Amino acid sequence: MSRPLSKRSGDAAIAAVALDPAAESPLHVQLASQLRQLILSRRLQAGARLPSSRQFAQELSVSRSTVVTAFDQLASEGYCEGRHGSGVYVTADLPEHALEIAASPAAARSEPMPAHPMPVRPFQVAAPDLSLFPHEDWGRLAWKIWRAPDPDLLATADPMGWLPLRRAIADHLAAARGLACHAGQILVTSGIGEAIAITAQALFRRGDRIWVEDPGYPLLLRALSLAGLRVAPVAVDANGLMLERLRGKAAAVAVTPSRHYPLGMTMPVQRRLELIARAEAMAGWIIEDDYDSEFRYRGRPLPALMSLDPNGRTLYLGSFSKVISPAMRLSFLVVPDRLAQRFATTIAQLGAKASLMPQPVLAEFMASGQFGSHIRRMRRIYARRQAALIEAARRHLSGLAEIEPQPSGMHVIARLTLPHMTDAEASRRAEAAGLVAPALSSYAMHARRERGLVLGYAAFSEAEIESAIVALAGALRS
Amino acid sequence: MSRPLSKRSGDAAIAAVALDPAAESPLHVQLASQLRQLILSRRLQAGARLPSSRQFAQELSVSRSTVVTAFDQLASEGYCEGRHGSGVYVTADLPEHALEIAASPAAARSEPMPAHPMPVRPFQVAAPDLSLFPHEDWGRLAWKIWRAPDPDLLATADPMGWLPLRRAIADHLAAARGLACHAGQILVTSGIGEAIAITAQALFRRGDRIWVEDPGYPLLLRALSLAGLRVAPVAVDANGLMLERLRGKAAAVAVTPSRHYPLGMTMPVQRRLELIARAEAMAGWIIEDDYDSEFRYRGRPLPALMSLDPNGRTLYLGSFSKVISPAMRLSFLVVPDRLAQRFATTIAQLGAKASLMPQPVLAEFMASGQFGSHIRRMRRIYARRQAALIEAARRHLSGLAEIEPQPSGMHVIARLTLPHMTDAEASRRAEAAGLVAPALSSYAMHARRERGLVLGYAAFSEAEIESAIVALAGALRS
Repeated sequence: MSRPLSKRSGDAAIAAVALDPAAESPLHVQLASQLRQLILSRRLQAGARLPSSRQFAQELSVSRSTVVTAFDQLASEGYCEGRHGSGVYVTADLPEHALEIAASPAAARSEPMPAHPMPVRPFQVAAPDLSLFPHEDWGRLAWKIWRAPDPDLLATADPMGWLPLRRAIADHLAAARGLACHAGQILVTSGIGEAIAITAQALFRRGDRIWVEDPGYPLLLRALSLAGLRVAPVAVDANGLMLERLRGKAAAVAVTPSRHYPLGMTMPVQRRLELIARAEAMAGWIIEDDYDSEFRYRGRPLPALMSLDPNGRTLYLGSFSKVISPAMRLSFLVVPDRLAQRFATTIAQLGAKASLMPQPVLAEFMASGQFGSHIRRMRRIYARRQAALIEAARRHLSGLAEIEPQPSGMHVIARLTLPHMTDAEASRRAEAAGLVAPALSSYAMHARRERGLVLGYAAFSEAEIESAIVALAGALRS
Repeated sequence: MSRPLSKRSGDAAIAAVALDPAAESPLHVQLASQLRQLILSRRLQAGARLPSSRQFAQELSVSRSTVVTAFDQLASEGYCEGRHGSGVYVTADLPEHALEIAASPAAARSEPMPAHPMPVRPFQVAAPDLSLFPHEDWGRLAWKIWRAPDPDLLATADPMGWLPLRRAIADHLAAARGLACHAGQILVTSGIGEAIAITAQALFRRGDRIWVEDPGYPLLLRALSLAGLRVAPVAVDANGLMLERLRGKAAAVAVTPSRHYPLGMTMPVQRRLELIARAEAMAGWIIEDDYDSEFRYRGRPLPALMSLDPNGRTLYLGSFSKVISPAMRLSFLVVPDRLAQRFATTIAQLGAKASLMPQPVLAEFMASGQFGSHIRRMRRIYARRQAALIEAARRHLSGLAEIEPQPSGMHVIARLTLPHMTDAEASRRAEAAGLVAPALSSYAMHARRERGLVLGYAAFSEAEIESAIVALAGALRS
């Protein structure tokens, strides 16, 4: 979360304020709004004294009456109070709830709300290197398609998504994930949250229990919780979710079998088959989240778990966030054939959320082969970056942390070897040094908390990685 | 999936029913609705025998006539059937599609799932004429922006949406709707469904009661129901929602004050002020849905209701579906300044769903003035089309239906004047003739059902309108 601006945070408040005289909203509204946000985010702390209206007026080149009006507004809302003869203070006893937000605890821990837009910093996880995306090609395709759109793009749209894109996804899944499916089983969604919400509406009742991996993927856990489902954490071992730990009943189990998040192991075929049998026996469902299987550097990937399921009990989640860009907000959901009609009805009822604008562009990008060559190119680059990170860690993190190479994905785990430091503390130190390195323990619910940092490397040049590792070493040693 | 209530599920039905005597809706409507949902969700199984009206009446402390009325209603809808001398049974052979998913009944009735993509047919409502959109300009802007995207478009995005777009929306609202707000109050969403889901998460609790207009806007009703809220229908008169019909308490009231959907009347200032005072008195919220205010042909529009609210209790919903294209899936939500931080947190928690791809394109389209000139051009064209429709109706629908001109919007109401035909029957005949003309009564929940057809005209040339009216006349006469 945001940190206080300074001990005497009031004095720093002026520096954090930026008024725009050209903006639609009056200056006093802008000022009040920005101070309110500083208070709500606790960057201006309870009890802090605000600079005088004269100081504000001078620094911001606005009239004193503008500042006084903003102060009055905030006072009337209870955010601050004048004390006779001594200036204006942030209210000392702002109720806690005014300052808090509700979130699922796991989500809240691992995903603080950033200021926006926020540049991608090392070692941000799950961030592709968008500077290497073929923007020129993408832009040209967008122009070609939208300057004279196919009449079907102007008709009442299919809520399941643009058909040529769903066909291209089916082809991609057959080739890359050994998954035979057809466009009628594929729904284009705006992200994992929508995919899970549709699934919950179609298959589950509010409060249904869903087994999840512990530690687990925060986005998936959050989506399940927001859809009104109860997540029941299940420990993992070197082969993924431990089936012998499944107790009682659940409506579904959600797994990342290609590459466990965040630990990186693959669920072997034998366990996949056992999980499939287990789902069939309890008439439950398997949600397979295949969040970054495109980036595999060594060996052949196992086919998708869904491809092994003869019972039609597996749903498959995929995303274009990492292979195209998170900005497009395009994900997809593959459902068993026998559920296709039910899911078509459900997404029509809930209302489609994925914009059509990027869909035909992506469809052509995939059909033309540009998608495949972009993935192959990024795979080579990301492999070199992982190697650079491991090499830099060998030189600079000795005695502090150890990193094992990973055959796939966009991040590694740095397991702490220095004694007496929690990974939460290590993560805080990294943050203070301008780095992003979530603590491994922050992904755990009840699991034994291993000490480690999750380091993404995909978005950073080898030189950036080197200096970020040096900075991390300094932060851990200091 | 939902499980049946019990082997003899009929007997358990009583336990699952909860009637609220304080609710707006009559007890027999509540009972019918809850039984319908039990049937749709298969908790009451096909062929199950319902408890007798006497049993229901006793257990629920209501009169037998209440129960009998509810049974009759369900029987008329085909959900159950009386068998002579042996009671009432859930229909044994309910068609599969009837069992798919319960939505708000109004939404379900008025929006069957179409085959896709489906060409826009007369008199489809809320469909803009996309053949007149400046696609060439839009495509060129898309190319210009995405071939070399602003670094902020590649950074971790602001979940509230692209800031320049939110600024352009604020400018537009100030100019067109008299609504002073700033970008910090605006959230870009993928549609009304997401906007309502965010609002529900930020302001309401599951099951909170929301007053809605009856008849009302299906998309809004559906979004509220899907967000876990209970809609309580309130009758409308020539000035919109009847405040004297508001009984008990509600967390919010959702209205279409600029132009009631589907009847078209405007809520005058006096009633707006009373509604604002009422919301303040009960510490509730007003959701203002301004779904098509851009197309006004005569007179000046009233400013947005939100602009009149000094208490910060109004939220404003707008959409680009009708002025740009539904394909973009771009809507927005304006929240009072004091809620801006809370909503920023909520959308970050729920995950943004609106694609960034169209957002900078639309921002430039608005900032450059192309948006304004497109609206002005379409306004002239749509005004001519409405006139053409009314003229064609005068010539061809005499003795069948009457249409009053509307000062704004994209549809009119053809009130049936021919005797002995329900509007549902008229709508079916129109459908059989290849036309789309929803029955006015299908928008009503408990309101007296006026006989009429809702006819959209915006997407059709004057010649198409003329021949569609001729076809409609033939269908009604045959």
